[in-house]
Amino acid sequence: MEVVEFRPEPEQFAWTFGGVAPIRRVRPGTVLRLWTEDAFCGRLRTTSDLPSSALMMPFVNPQTGPFYVEGAEPGDTLVLHLVDLTPARGWGASTTIPFFGGLTGTDRTATLQPPLPERTWIYEVDRSRGTVTFSALTSEFQLDLPMAPMLGTVGVAPAAYEARSALVPDRFGGNMDTPEMRAGVTCYLGVNVEGALFSIGDGHYRQGEGEACGTAVEGAMDVTLIVELVKGRAPLWPRLESDTHLITVGSSRPLEDAWRISQVEMVSWLSELYRLETLDSYQLLSQISEAPLANVVDVNYSALAKIAKAYLPPATAYDGLHRHLRELAAQIPTS
Amino acid sequence: MEVVEFRPEPEQFAWTFGGVAPIRRVRPGTVLRLWTEDAFCGRLRTTSDLPSSALMMPFVNPQTGPFYVEGAEPGDTLVLHLVDLTPARGWGASTTIPFFGGLTGTDRTATLQPPLPERTWIYEVDRSRGTVTFSALTSEFQLDLPMAPMLGTVGVAPAAYEARSALVPDRFGGNMDTPEMRAGVTCYLGVNVEGALFSIGDGHYRQGEGEACGTAVEGAMDVTLIVELVKGRAPLWPRLESDTHLITVGSSRPLEDAWRISQVEMVSWLSELYRLETLDSYQLLSQISEAPLANVVDVNYSALAKIAKAYLPPATAYDGLHRHLRELAAQIPTS
Amino acid sequence: MEVVEFRPEPEQFAWTFGGVAPIRRVRPGTVLRLWTEDAFCGRLRTTSDLPSSALMMPFVNPQTGPFYVEGAEPGDTLVLHLVDLTPARGWGASTTIPFFGGLTGTDRTATLQPPLPERTWIYEVDRSRGTVTFSALTSEFQLDLPMAPMLGTVGVAPAAYEARSALVPDRFGGNMDTPEMRAGVTCYLGVNVEGALFSIGDGHYRQGEGEACGTAVEGAMDVTLIVELVKGRAPLWPRLESDTHLITVGSSRPLEDAWRISQVEMVSWLSELYRLETLDSYQLLSQISEAPLANVVDVNYSALAKIAKAYLPPATAYDGLHRHLRELAAQIPTS
Amino acid sequence: MEVVEFRPEPEQFAWTFGGVAPIRRVRPGTVLRLWTEDAFCGRLRTTSDLPSSALMMPFVNPQTGPFYVEGAEPGDTLVLHLVDLTPARGWGASTTIPFFGGLTGTDRTATLQPPLPERTWIYEVDRSRGTVTFSALTSEFQLDLPMAPMLGTVGVAPAAYEARSALVPDRFGGNMDTPEMRAGVTCYLGVNVEGALFSIGDGHYRQGEGEACGTAVEGAMDVTLIVELVKGRAPLWPRLESDTHLITVGSSRPLEDAWRISQVEMVSWLSELYRLETLDSYQLLSQISEAPLANVVDVNYSALAKIAKAYLPPATAYDGLHRHLRELAAQIPTS
Repeated sequence: MEVVEFRPEPEQFAWTFGGVAPIRRVRPGTVLRLWTEDAFCGRLRTTSDLPSSALMMPFVNPQTGPFYVEGAEPGDTLVLHLVDLTPARGWGASTTIPFFGGLTGTDRTATLQPPLPERTWIYEVDRSRGTVTFSALTSEFQLDLPMAPMLGTVGVAPAAYEARSALVPDRFGGNMDTPEMRAGVTCYLGVNVEGALFSIGDGHYRQGEGEACGTAVEGAMDVTLIVELVKGRAPLWPRLESDTHLITVGSSRPLEDAWRISQVEMVSWLSELYRLETLDSYQLLSQISEAPLANVVDVNYSALAKIAKAYLPPATAYDGLHRHLRELAAQIPTS
Repeated sequence: MEVVEFRPEPEQFAWTFGGVAPIRRVRPGTVLRLWTEDAFCGRLRTTSDLPSSALMMPFVNPQTGPFYVEGAEPGDTLVLHLVDLTPARGWGASTTIPFFGGLTGTDRTATLQPPLPERTWIYEVDRSRGTVTFSALTSEFQLDLPMAPMLGTVGVAPAAYEARSALVPDRFGGNMDTPEMRAGVTCYLGVNVEGALFSIGDGHYRQGEGEACGTAVEGAMDVTLIVELVKGRAPLWPRLESDTHLITVGSSRPLEDAWRISQVEMVSWLSELYRLETLDSYQLLSQISEAPLANVVDVNYSALAKIAKAYLPPATAYDGLHRHLRELAAQIPTS
Repeated sequence: MEVVEFRPEPEQFAWTFGGVAPIRRVRPGTVLRLWTEDAFCGRLRTTSDLPSSALMMPFVNPQTGPFYVEGAEPGDTLVLHLVDLTPARGWGASTTIPFFGGLTGTDRTATLQPPLPERTWIYEVDRSRGTVTFSALTSEFQLDLPMAPMLGTVGVAPAAYEARSALVPDRFGGNMDTPEMRAGVTCYLGVNVEGALFSIGDGHYRQGEGEACGTAVEGAMDVTLIVELVKGRAPLWPRLESDTHLITVGSSRPLEDAWRISQVEMVSWLSELYRLETLDSYQLLSQISEAPLANVVDVNYSALAKIAKAYLPPATAYDGLHRHLRELAAQIPTS
Repeated sequence: MEVVEFRPEPEQFAWTFGGVAPIRRVRPGTVLRLWTEDAFCGRLRTTSDLPSSALMMPFVNPQTGPFYVEGAEPGDTLVLHLVDLTPARGWGASTTIPFFGGLTGTDRTATLQPPLPERTWIYEVDRSRGTVTFSALTSEFQLDLPMAPMLGTVGVAPAAYEARSALVPDRFGGNMDTPEMRAGVTCYLGVNVEGALFSIGDGHYRQGEGEACGTAVEGAMDVTLIVELVKGRAPLWPRLESDTHLITVGSSRPLEDAWRISQVEMVSWLSELYRLETLDSYQLLSQISEAPLANVVDVNYSALAKIAKAYLPPATAYDGLHRHLRELAAQIPTS
């Protein structure tokens, strides 16, 4: 396996999906060893570092990429298998940002109330125990939580000549902010432009479903992934596959539309895999789908349809590619 | 423990929460052994029984109740502990209903498209294996799925002199349609009227999150529950507690508002349990909440905030009532 | 014409649509001279009267009614022609109510921010000039605005044994809060129960579209109306007709669903009136519909489809009933 | 006044806001005489021309521009005064497009129903009478409607390095699709990038509020406008001013968020103009705002807050610029 390592300098960060020249060209089959800066550009280091003074909009959520995948054409399926996600710092940061988040008025859900107070929480990382520690700001309350590394952002260049902020999730993937984007998962994305031009970023050491306050335990991440390409067969919306689950991701507003997208896409997937007629898939889905939320805070909200493989007859999505990639991944020395 | 058995005759079914005289008076501490008819009134028995001809609106989702709980006053907390849910028939039914469901235009999401075809699926129950069997209508595809009995509907009389259809979930509980409403769970509901006037119904032998097509594997259910009462301390929205999780349920439209309600209510609960300031609870919640959907098809949509007790320090919600009820439940012979 | 006068005593107020015994029986063709208390029960009389202390929930928005219309059966069309709306007091009141209104978090759009300050504005009525006067609370700014009396609430008993708070707009009409509900307008409502059981209330001396802060210039109203009945032909959602416009009203959440309902109902109405095929109506509607909002603050939001008769060929909705009622109304001495 | 004429060749069309090099540089004060192709690229000429065969996605809604305005910097206010809009063809076209429009499931409001049938309507333009003629496809019904030319799309380059499809309305303006964008109106847009880079397009010979079916009476347009620049004072969202009204435009989903944005922006504008405290503006707005919808079909929905100047004391928004531009416009010979 060809292995490419890349650690962007700050001036190499990408701030959008689309509209950016590729930073590297890679062949399908390549193993990438990447580093991603956190969404705050590493600027929130203590509880005194507040977003309004420490961050410089729109320079948030820097992406590592884009990568030009040789041979990728519109209509193809870009396949990214996450081999390993390892926190690259000893602390993560989370914060409330004025008029941003799920339990506050925002620039869109515009109200006349003053914003919630701006606060920063710092989570200590304990690698040996595999924990991050929540420390309340206004009491002695502390809590060790399991580390659960994930990538908030995985995406390709959008269609229709668009360039979208790295804060946006949509059909091209992007800032979906789902805890399911963890090591061991294969992500399938429809290719919109030659070379696919994918980027990743937004490492989270841990995140709840919905990402209520708008930010996870944000931290720089060491990422190992394998790039693959399936000619044609582009899914309409992002799909994920793990050893145990099939997942589709919809991103839109209102939240029911994100959910509808994910469910309709899963109906399609089930129909493909088991040659089921649409209404039969719809019925089956209705009884077996899990529906965890990803984010209810970003430019689009993201919802998931998630089905346990254990419920289903054996099937090989994308010709068993996930299993193949898992086997390849096992041969890569961890970083 | 006082044990009351009740199996309603069809003319005793309640079709609303509120607006109905109590069918029985019960004391706090009573064990109730109930039977509930399914949401289709048992009229869908074969795949040829279609909703438009077999059902007579508005006579769907019959409730068993209401029960007048002695001593219950507005502002109190009605506590219902589900001891046992056992399917009372050898088959369950599910269906697509014209202009009803999550992946179709509806009377609210009004479009000009014709409805999806009307279909009925019958699931065979295998008690020994604990399964229900999905049989596709248009192919030979069959699938055994784990039985997972739950109640779609648990609620009290609403406030403000309202009477709401048994199809509605709202602050009073009602048709929340969450798979979390299973045996072993304690449900806390704010009391709005003297006697609380609670009802239950809508047995599901299994249901996916979101209940996409609008109906679960619907079936008559034998229900054993314990009624308790906490004076005062009414939660704003329904709360559930299991051995492993704390859960709050919000019901509204659009779906993000259901989610917001559940999250804000959980922020309150965390603050109560751990004396956390609001923003600290908000932050903690953001990193540990699960957010499974309940239904995206009913008059209001229902979303859950769900937190694993394993993440939290020991705490005793409602003075440890759930644990106490679990112990009591263990002493009740199963039906 | 038979004329019935009725001025409810406070203990006769109705607080719901449905669930209340009729206060009077009336025959179709009857002229009703009614008085309606304001939504605040007349308790906000100075800028020092604040909702949280002056109002007693749920006793707000008292309705005058319900009236039992003889001969009205489910499936019929209740016709209410508003002959005259005259402010019954020399002042109107408006207010901000904590966690209520369009530009604030609410009990549904739940956020963690503190509420907006509670305030009351009193508008002086000048009958001779036909104005109400806005007086800013924190500056000398004053503004005379044209009086534009309307009823926020006109509705019948709901279907399915429901009783709904007088704060709710839905298919049964209710608290639609549209400025189009003014004198000279005919309102068509589908009948759900024997006798129709309609009520009116919530006089507004003036209101903007959307009713942003949640309350209009609220004031007691003298109301003259004619009751009529069309057998059968119940519209799915409320319809209004004036000398110049046809209007349909949809009420739901999110707001696009309220709009969709109103548009689909207008497509139906156009198809009925001009024997147009559905897609032709859809196309025509798309080029001529006005879409003013009614309220974006109530339990359901209300949106209107409104078409100028001047654009359309002559047609006689409901056999020319509106014109007939206008002629009858002209013969009634104004109060 | 400097006059610049520009008629783009097809290869000069812009398909996005942002991401495109300027086609011309203009000085503030310049009069532009432009031509815009229709949203269908002129390809729907008969009722047999259907979108799925005649259009080539994403090449729809071609924009004339972008224009680089000398001196424009982020934070400035670009001012576009529409002097004249004259239909440039003798017919306009409208259509239903599969899974696009307000009364159908879409790619976002994803359902399993088949799409509505695809249809094209051609409207004959009669310049002398000032009408466009609707002709039903399935009956003899014909209707002359007043011509009411407007621009669906007016916008600048977005912030944050984004490039957005010309089908999108957002903070940068874009495809707002409001009938208020007519001759005689001044449009204020916040500048995000050097030179502002504005474009216009999407001529509508007539459109209903909401644009229900997704397309107006689309037609090529001759456009005369004056470009001005106000240093600083960028409004957060687009504002319009006519001789009779002040208007703000919000674009988002769900529709209530678009409405909230427009209302909050109008509260700000009223507070600026009359030095009113926020809650006083909120109250005043609540009683005088009109709230017509623009579109409920695009990537974001657009809603307007609209206030009649007749209700307000005299005030000079942007130092009376609108009045000044109206006077200048009167001196320009119409095309």
